[in-house]
Amino acid sequence: MEPETRALLEAWRGRLGRELDAAIGFWARHSHDPEHGGFFSCLGRDGAVYDDVKYVWLQGRQVWVYARLYRTVPRFRRPDLLEAARAGGEFLLRCARLGPGSPKAAFALSRDGRPTKVQRSIFSECFCALGLDELGRATGEPRYRREARALLEAVARWVREDPTELGRPLLAGATPHEPLAEPMMLLCLAEQLGDGAGGPLAELEGWCARRLLCHLQRDGSAVLENVSPEGKELPGCLGRQQNPGHAIEAGWFLLRFAQRQGDAALAAQAIEGFMVRPFQAGWDPEHGGLFAFQDADGLCPTQLEWNMKLWWPHAEAMVAFLMAYAHSREPALLRLFDQVAAYAFQRFRDPEHGEWFGYLAQDGKVALTIKGGPFKGCFHVPRALHLCEELLDKLLREP
Amino acid sequence: MEPETRALLEAWRGRLGRELDAAIGFWARHSHDPEHGGFFSCLGRDGAVYDDVKYVWLQGRQVWVYARLYRTVPRFRRPDLLEAARAGGEFLLRCARLGPGSPKAAFALSRDGRPTKVQRSIFSECFCALGLDELGRATGEPRYRREARALLEAVARWVREDPTELGRPLLAGATPHEPLAEPMMLLCLAEQLGDGAGGPLAELEGWCARRLLCHLQRDGSAVLENVSPEGKELPGCLGRQQNPGHAIEAGWFLLRFAQRQGDAALAAQAIEGFMVRPFQAGWDPEHGGLFAFQDADGLCPTQLEWNMKLWWPHAEAMVAFLMAYAHSREPALLRLFDQVAAYAFQRFRDPEHGEWFGYLAQDGKVALTIKGGPFKGCFHVPRALHLCEELLDKLLREP
Repeated sequence: MEPETRALLEAWRGRLGRELDAAIGFWARHSHDPEHGGFFSCLGRDGAVYDDVKYVWLQGRQVWVYARLYRTVPRFRRPDLLEAARAGGEFLLRCARLGPGSPKAAFALSRDGRPTKVQRSIFSECFCALGLDELGRATGEPRYRREARALLEAVARWVREDPTELGRPLLAGATPHEPLAEPMMLLCLAEQLGDGAGGPLAELEGWCARRLLCHLQRDGSAVLENVSPEGKELPGCLGRQQNPGHAIEAGWFLLRFAQRQGDAALAAQAIEGFMVRPFQAGWDPEHGGLFAFQDADGLCPTQLEWNMKLWWPHAEAMVAFLMAYAHSREPALLRLFDQVAAYAFQRFRDPEHGEWFGYLAQDGKVALTIKGGPFKGCFHVPRALHLCEELLDKLLREP
Repeated sequence: MEPETRALLEAWRGRLGRELDAAIGFWARHSHDPEHGGFFSCLGRDGAVYDDVKYVWLQGRQVWVYARLYRTVPRFRRPDLLEAARAGGEFLLRCARLGPGSPKAAFALSRDGRPTKVQRSIFSECFCALGLDELGRATGEPRYRREARALLEAVARWVREDPTELGRPLLAGATPHEPLAEPMMLLCLAEQLGDGAGGPLAELEGWCARRLLCHLQRDGSAVLENVSPEGKELPGCLGRQQNPGHAIEAGWFLLRFAQRQGDAALAAQAIEGFMVRPFQAGWDPEHGGLFAFQDADGLCPTQLEWNMKLWWPHAEAMVAFLMAYAHSREPALLRLFDQVAAYAFQRFRDPEHGEWFGYLAQDGKVALTIKGGPFKGCFHVPRALHLCEELLDKLLREP
């Protein structure tokens, strides 16, 4: 390794490690509910709880982060983290499902665990399964992984066979479409719950990868959020919608799958089609940062936040480009990691209170001072910092 | 009237009239669907259709605008406007309801009128009723008003008696709450469908006014979007949520009700509590313009667009302050009209293509270049310009 490259990797390793400590410190100080278990996620800049609603996505995700760090990172093998993860997992087992035996989980719960909102989508169940599986691995208790497996089976059934239980109305004019998020999330879950290539979830992983590739359209130049069930581009806003952060996140899920399969061509496609091109098209040439939404024909998106800069696409891009660099050793990929990490550390980081701001205006000014809310919790920032730390450690062990 | 005041009113009368002509010209040129009836609302800056989905709210609203202008403004008594309104009304009669005899209307329809989205709220039905009633008045054909009356009865039943038909899930942890938008919209509809004070909808109007007043909390210093069924403030984000544009729009609905009732105390409360205070608290001291959302305790709202400047609160504030000035002749209210109208004409107006931009960043730069989309159509801008024109004409006829 060239000395310059080593110096860059070492500098980021130090910054990322300290930042991960600060992020976990923030959530450990402010988000635990000692009374009911589970986590508050509506936290202001300084960590003050501004609402006690508990979002199921964010419960499952925080359980995952704590259990994964406990299990794999020696400095986080702390009883307090495992206990909080367990209290979160027990809260989910007790309260997430809408009723005993119901296949559907709530989207939001009251502080004491009664359902307050339900979505007609798969994601509450997915994030419950993600957290519970990792908790099962960290504690060695099979009941958590059994519940995770049951949730995965329900989700796979809804996506692949029959969505009736989701409760979506069947409307005569609705355009049948497949959202990128579904195979993407299922692939992530299959990796989490499976046990490496060739395991019992191998067939599901292959299916997800094939569905993801259907979203790479226009001769590989554009990742589209929604395609037809036949894998074709759809008309209108639905068909032209792009989300650079989603494409890039799907890219590293796909790259890991390709690595497990030993599929070099797929790995190259994941890097070029899902990471590099969406990044180049999605990076704001004027102010820096990734747009939240784009239109594949360059029209104005209808999402009001389209030109805002959100924390999670930047966290995902850090993971994606460092992973891609570790895979290919292409220096341009390391430069992209450095570009996005520098932007993120300059703009999203809050050195005063820890964790990152989530929502910047187009020009990079903080638009919302909250550290957590209905969609931001203890997940993207610590997951990205942890995965990048792992990748950097591995790279730096090489001669 | 003082010469200075007259000059100001005359200047605005001229600008508003020309702007109304430009707005109606924009929609008449670009939004009509000669094939299926109804209106395209997804229009780019220059009027190009970027999606052919038809939003039911926006169909009903455009029918209302065309029919009202045709009926009451001599220069708009044009056969092409009435024909377009009628084609929109027929499209709604044929397609808006989810099925024959269904009490629920769709939220969005395909170009040819098949349902693509449904909301579990009352507003599609409300805007259908608003447009069809006005179309019935403009054409003299009773079947439009009969359908409007049936829709109003369904909505009033859902809001006042039994929301079961809306299809909302009953969740054990959900906080019972009353949103400002429901009595506000019902009051607007009752005025439209009724025939002045003491008519058959007088009881409903009184009920709406009482419910609206429940949202004036904290000793009259704050209008809260959601209150308990007992009219008390609620905890958490739900309870602290404020929407200055909603408060101000509700203010002029309430002022008109107070005028019909001859209730001077209620009129004063509408002006001070629903218009002046929300405007003062909601006006951005740094960049000008009204915030989209606020938190009554000054915390950061969780809506990503909270500090954006949207067209409709400014249109509503123009109507509100001019109406309040015409009512009380308080010069401070005319100054507020002038302040908000000057901001709107400077920032939202598009002199090149007509109509207004809908969405500005906090600093007043155009964030979305679309002229229409899922929530912006031919309504707030032309309604406000028309109502202000009416008010100005009346004021200027005085000696």
